[in-house]
Amino acid sequence: MSDAVSPLASPFPALPAIAGVTPRIARAGYKDWGRCDLTYVELTEGTAVAGVFTRNVCCSSEVEIGRDNIQQGRARALVVNAGNSNAFTGYRGREAVEVIMGQVAAHLGCAQDQVFVSSTGVIGVPLPKDKARAGVEAALTAQPCSWEDAARTIGTTDTFAKGATASAIVDGKRIEFAAIIKGSGMIAPDMATMLGYVFTDAAVEPAFLQQCLSAANVETFSCITVDSDTSTSDTVLAFATGAAGNAPLASFDSPGAEAFAAALHDVCRQLAHLVVKDGEGAQKFIAVAVTGAVSDASARKVGLAIANSPLVKTAIAGEDANWGRVVMAVGKAGEPADRDKLSIGFGGTWTAKDGQPLADYDEAPVAAHLKTREISIEVDLGLGEGRATVWTCDLTHGYISINADYRS
Amino acid sequence: MSDAVSPLASPFPALPAIAGVTPRIARAGYKDWGRCDLTYVELTEGTAVAGVFTRNVCCSSEVEIGRDNIQQGRARALVVNAGNSNAFTGYRGREAVEVIMGQVAAHLGCAQDQVFVSSTGVIGVPLPKDKARAGVEAALTAQPCSWEDAARTIGTTDTFAKGATASAIVDGKRIEFAAIIKGSGMIAPDMATMLGYVFTDAAVEPAFLQQCLSAANVETFSCITVDSDTSTSDTVLAFATGAAGNAPLASFDSPGAEAFAAALHDVCRQLAHLVVKDGEGAQKFIAVAVTGAVSDASARKVGLAIANSPLVKTAIAGEDANWGRVVMAVGKAGEPADRDKLSIGFGGTWTAKDGQPLADYDEAPVAAHLKTREISIEVDLGLGEGRATVWTCDLTHGYISINADYRS
Repeated sequence: MSDAVSPLASPFPALPAIAGVTPRIARAGYKDWGRCDLTYVELTEGTAVAGVFTRNVCCSSEVEIGRDNIQQGRARALVVNAGNSNAFTGYRGREAVEVIMGQVAAHLGCAQDQVFVSSTGVIGVPLPKDKARAGVEAALTAQPCSWEDAARTIGTTDTFAKGATASAIVDGKRIEFAAIIKGSGMIAPDMATMLGYVFTDAAVEPAFLQQCLSAANVETFSCITVDSDTSTSDTVLAFATGAAGNAPLASFDSPGAEAFAAALHDVCRQLAHLVVKDGEGAQKFIAVAVTGAVSDASARKVGLAIANSPLVKTAIAGEDANWGRVVMAVGKAGEPADRDKLSIGFGGTWTAKDGQPLADYDEAPVAAHLKTREISIEVDLGLGEGRATVWTCDLTHGYISINADYRS
Repeated sequence: MSDAVSPLASPFPALPAIAGVTPRIARAGYKDWGRCDLTYVELTEGTAVAGVFTRNVCCSSEVEIGRDNIQQGRARALVVNAGNSNAFTGYRGREAVEVIMGQVAAHLGCAQDQVFVSSTGVIGVPLPKDKARAGVEAALTAQPCSWEDAARTIGTTDTFAKGATASAIVDGKRIEFAAIIKGSGMIAPDMATMLGYVFTDAAVEPAFLQQCLSAANVETFSCITVDSDTSTSDTVLAFATGAAGNAPLASFDSPGAEAFAAALHDVCRQLAHLVVKDGEGAQKFIAVAVTGAVSDASARKVGLAIANSPLVKTAIAGEDANWGRVVMAVGKAGEPADRDKLSIGFGGTWTAKDGQPLADYDEAPVAAHLKTREISIEVDLGLGEGRATVWTCDLTHGYISINADYRS
């Protein structure tokens, strides 16, 4: 964890214990930073698992293996290494992951493909097998830890620990969610990596868990961007232990399935926002709400074009209601748009409507809004019913300092 | 022109007079900056014209009209307004362009669609018709000016005047090129705009001129990026007066056509590089050479993903041979790539080969190379014969200062 905490940080929330989930932490010593860096989460037998992974084709062995193993739908353990991403390390990197999987599977007496491993940190250095083995050994027998300790331990240069929770009534039972994530920290010479883990005591069939997670992902993790770069290791896993005792959810026809899906979506949205709020150099949290697109997917692409535009992001950093840059970003998105139907607002005040700047709009509320930490940009394309909201942060000197002002 | 000249600036070259081309400048007073801001270039009868325009769908009226008028293939005049881009101004903006076209056409006794107009500067403010009319009136009768004066007059916050030249022997005649461009300057609250103009005395049929310009564009202007944002006004026009007296070039079967196309390509490449060298905040010029892709188009997309990556650009600003960020950018490009066949180098030294970092590469030449102003990044995908080179600049505090540290 870095010393300078993001101005957008929030305190770690009170997360419930999840029956069937036991987190533990240990020191593998991947880096010389005098803190725990290995997180081990034991899961009760029969726990369902689902996952979404980076689309970066140069992904890590962890991602390749996890993507394969998620198919069988069950998990007994999660191991997260911090300080070494093990990416771009070829067969030696793969061997280290297999060492961890074998060691945990032997301890639990489970199949090796029920052990999920993530790594984050330096790229191009194979994860040292000896350190991993000793770290896992220590973690297997460590005392259970708090969610906050686990959240801190999966972090790298995150400036604050990130957690989220939700609950729902499913089939007459109260179900709980506890979730942690690490975000857009940076370890030279690595890029930002997002690793998120959602735990629930609900009983859910793996296929339906995957359906709900994939749907939530489209509107949460896939709608955030810090700098348009995509990590080789991005992973979000959801684990459902079934300890709550509800009749297992198998589809949206199951009683309580809607409530479960809504709570999962809520947790994912909370986690996604926390990642943006710890974006490198972030001073402002920006929501870009696009309406009037020809489809939701089109609205999302337009939103991301705006949220990824360095000129839009620097304008917000400068507290400048620069709708001209938003017009530009809409136009370059490659999606259907009509300049003469386009309207743009900030904080709920339209500054341009139907392709014309509004000469007489009230600048005072716009200027006041732009001075706050949480900014909204509204874009109406005037074409259809498609809508999406994406989230990003501003682009500041802090981003440049973190990423350029050192040598690896 | 800004006071702080780019460290990558070069002196304005000696450009030849082009028979049949007469540049003049005047003050329309679009902004209160006490310099000429209207450029008028008169072209001899029969001059062929070709153009490439921004793909931004929220483009200016100038772009819409120019794209239509280019179809008939002939030009008598060019007018460039600096200080007001006239973009996102609806019908009022369009009327101002038509006023200029009509005024010039009446003066020259030509068809209105042979008058080409570009504007660059503030967005969302209709170009004032009275100022335009008075400025054009003054320019029509002004003394001819130098290329350097014309290059300076089309500029906005460009930090140096940009010109290029080339010559070739075509059909036994020496033909000349003179070209000017303005680049990634910024006028609040506008985005960067690229406007380029190439003049030659060669005789060329419009369709073949368009073919050559479009081909050159793919490998020059379309291979540069400063910050991934695409202006609403980007335009490059080529004018060929025919005064050199060669037999008109109609296809690559015409004698000298190859030499003409090569010289045009050379001029476009020079202009494109000058735009990057005046990129906002640029301290280093970066060439990204991609080889081994499945096609040239795929190589170009991979190159642009690298050149647009904020993490790669900040690494170069930090003089850091951060091949891990290059791996990430390759992987996110969405093009065929195989992590285990990927090789990455800086300044001709491989730092990673076949998906493995080279532990024993010689760091000294890499470190020395990264301290220079002109950086090369080599990426071999190991898949096929496709290749492309793209050019960009580093991402520095200067970019943030220019784009965030003011209010419009």
